[in-house]
Amino acid sequence: MGPASSSIVYRAAHGVIEGRWVDEPWLAVDEGGTITALGHAGQAEPPAELLQRDLGPVMLLPGMVDAHSHAFQRAIRGATHRRGAHDPSSFWSWREAMYARAQTLDPEGVHAITRQAFAEMLRAGITCVGEFHYLHHQPDGRPYADPNELSAQVLRAAAEVGIRVVLLQVLYLRAGHGQPALPEQRRFCDADVDAYLRRVDDLRSRGVPLGLAPHSVRAVPRPALLEAIRYAHAHGLPLHAHLSEQPRENEECRAEHGVTPTRLLVDAGACERARGLTAVHAVHTTAEDHRLLAGQHVCACPTTEADLGDGIVPAVELRDAGVEVALGSDSNAVIDLVQEARLLEMDERLRGQARLRLCDERGRLGPALLHAATEAGASALGQSATLGRLGVGRPFDALTVGLDDPFFEGIASDHLLDALMCAGTARAVRHVFVGGQARG
Amino acid sequence: MGPASSSIVYRAAHGVIEGRWVDEPWLAVDEGGTITALGHAGQAEPPAELLQRDLGPVMLLPGMVDAHSHAFQRAIRGATHRRGAHDPSSFWSWREAMYARAQTLDPEGVHAITRQAFAEMLRAGITCVGEFHYLHHQPDGRPYADPNELSAQVLRAAAEVGIRVVLLQVLYLRAGHGQPALPEQRRFCDADVDAYLRRVDDLRSRGVPLGLAPHSVRAVPRPALLEAIRYAHAHGLPLHAHLSEQPRENEECRAEHGVTPTRLLVDAGACERARGLTAVHAVHTTAEDHRLLAGQHVCACPTTEADLGDGIVPAVELRDAGVEVALGSDSNAVIDLVQEARLLEMDERLRGQARLRLCDERGRLGPALLHAATEAGASALGQSATLGRLGVGRPFDALTVGLDDPFFEGIASDHLLDALMCAGTARAVRHVFVGGQARG
Repeated sequence: MGPASSSIVYRAAHGVIEGRWVDEPWLAVDEGGTITALGHAGQAEPPAELLQRDLGPVMLLPGMVDAHSHAFQRAIRGATHRRGAHDPSSFWSWREAMYARAQTLDPEGVHAITRQAFAEMLRAGITCVGEFHYLHHQPDGRPYADPNELSAQVLRAAAEVGIRVVLLQVLYLRAGHGQPALPEQRRFCDADVDAYLRRVDDLRSRGVPLGLAPHSVRAVPRPALLEAIRYAHAHGLPLHAHLSEQPRENEECRAEHGVTPTRLLVDAGACERARGLTAVHAVHTTAEDHRLLAGQHVCACPTTEADLGDGIVPAVELRDAGVEVALGSDSNAVIDLVQEARLLEMDERLRGQARLRLCDERGRLGPALLHAATEAGASALGQSATLGRLGVGRPFDALTVGLDDPFFEGIASDHLLDALMCAGTARAVRHVFVGGQARG
Repeated sequence: MGPASSSIVYRAAHGVIEGRWVDEPWLAVDEGGTITALGHAGQAEPPAELLQRDLGPVMLLPGMVDAHSHAFQRAIRGATHRRGAHDPSSFWSWREAMYARAQTLDPEGVHAITRQAFAEMLRAGITCVGEFHYLHHQPDGRPYADPNELSAQVLRAAAEVGIRVVLLQVLYLRAGHGQPALPEQRRFCDADVDAYLRRVDDLRSRGVPLGLAPHSVRAVPRPALLEAIRYAHAHGLPLHAHLSEQPRENEECRAEHGVTPTRLLVDAGACERARGLTAVHAVHTTAEDHRLLAGQHVCACPTTEADLGDGIVPAVELRDAGVEVALGSDSNAVIDLVQEARLLEMDERLRGQARLRLCDERGRLGPALLHAATEAGASALGQSATLGRLGVGRPFDALTVGLDDPFFEGIASDHLLDALMCAGTARAVRHVFVGGQARG
């Protein structure tokens, strides 16, 4: 079947189509926003009777997938870099500042800041975001009339700006081992795991794209962790958790359970499904942890992990152990997955004092870093069948990068993708499409 | 004396004037491009009879000073991130790729690529660059008819795009201890230090802003190093040298001289003048090296030092030892001193696993990082009396950052500079002025 007559054919100078770099790609997109045919220079031309749209001197790439965001933290961009009465000189004191801001947000405030962050994401070529959402209840912890009120505000913000969202609904129950939630954590907390799962049931019944996110082994006791994992597996939902972001989390886990956070998750069954788990950060992990995570995802968030003094994700060791590394904008101080991808590689160069750390099996770095920003994220969010890749039958979620930007002047076409991913930013993103609709 | 009648008054919403963050700054600039008066909200208004120009919702900052550039290396942006027949997986094999490109450039080629790099710098708010220039002669090492032909091409490129340049004229004599120059290094090399100094004399006689740059302790034997240092001191010229970028340089220096490269430079008299020396990189330096460099500059180039697998500049230790840390774009794969400043801090957070590493004495980070990108660079290039700061009697070298960029939406004015320097890029640079002329 050829594309319907209401289709549009998009053309670009270069692009990554079906995972391959090609010259003069074209894609036919039907009125529902699905790619119905594609090709590139040297192959058959697209049907001439279709409306043609040449996007100009650009490279066309799959839309990027941000696998870990806390949208509301966009509200403290620039606000935690100063000594004073409150001195955010560690991860933990930074967290106090972040909590203080979180306390001030009412439903409209959550909507407004989320919309702002999501709009920035779209402009930066991010077409799908995994929102790791833990602002659930009123500041004192009492549920809103709709217990999913704030989740609904996140979904509303996404719908308004036109970005896809997978709601990674967070389970948060305590401050730590034997410690009830701090006052400023109360709005993150459900009464128990059953209350949490009732909210999840409600969202599932509304058809919301979902993942289950026990916040961390610190915030979720083992029995509740087991229940959340069981639920995720039973319903085929992605499972996300913060993991080993700070050494203190490891120490506390060892004191409570006698094992690393990774071992605790694995023993609780988190890795029973291939590609079912996304461990966020995994900075302070051991070689044994890396082996345990084989076949799963780690989500690295390099700009946040630097900002918060976490450390460098051991992406080389994880890759070598068979872990798929995705990317997240996390605190959203920086919203730019090109920078996240670049720093994933560059921080590994700093750590290993050598170059070319994360090349794919063909020795290519640009495609490997683009994969982290697209397909790996789609897989982490349980969307690999549809997102992260431009191909027939998939939605036209795409971005273009303007090659007439002086940044690219004089660069051979064969090096454009490497230049973008190893030296660039999302600055040169020009067009953004989600499901065939122009956005950004 | 008030400003002349041909002066223009520039106004902005916020800015850093005379080193201080102020609201509603104004500057009167005469027709020669010199600042003749200034003020801000709550002070006297500027003379109403002058032509007024409101730059709009922007922050006005001093033009940035890039203290270390190899403009021609812009030609290999994106070209060294792939395994293959040539495998640039280390600093040294990257250098082979860079040398191969350097071999292909004729005078017009040097002019073209330098012009391209300098134009990008201006757009990114860099108004003065220290060009560490070592492409001197024909590819086989024979001088051009004008032995300063390629220096002249660099100066021509700068004049054409309107950026200030300080030519850091490089002395290069050998591949290493007991090793003559490699064939691909011949065009960097003068016959001896006297031939080099004759070229320097010639440039001085033409009034070119100059610094002396013995390339490294690897490329310059000790007697020539002594002569270059003596000349720089005799003529009050800045002295620049690569220092301890890679461990191998340290090992070779220890084998040849029995000391660290820093100790060798210091014993050769390089630190005899306060703020006379700029050591570029200083990554693999000891606590003793840091003490020896007190009162001098280090130029850090974080994006290049990551790209090449060098490592992290110990900026905290250097600062604590009394070293002024400036910034350079170095290989020019990335041309963005906001990113360099941000990564100076962020890489230190990765190294120390703590936040707020480089705050100034008032506990402020934004101003400290802006200082590195402006005043420290001006000092490293011997231009602190005129550049790096907006003040009466100084040239109007400035940039503005557009605060209507969505990046800044919702950020309190008191946090704008921190947001830019700790999370931003040069993307939002809007206006650039050099000596009062609009550029970029």
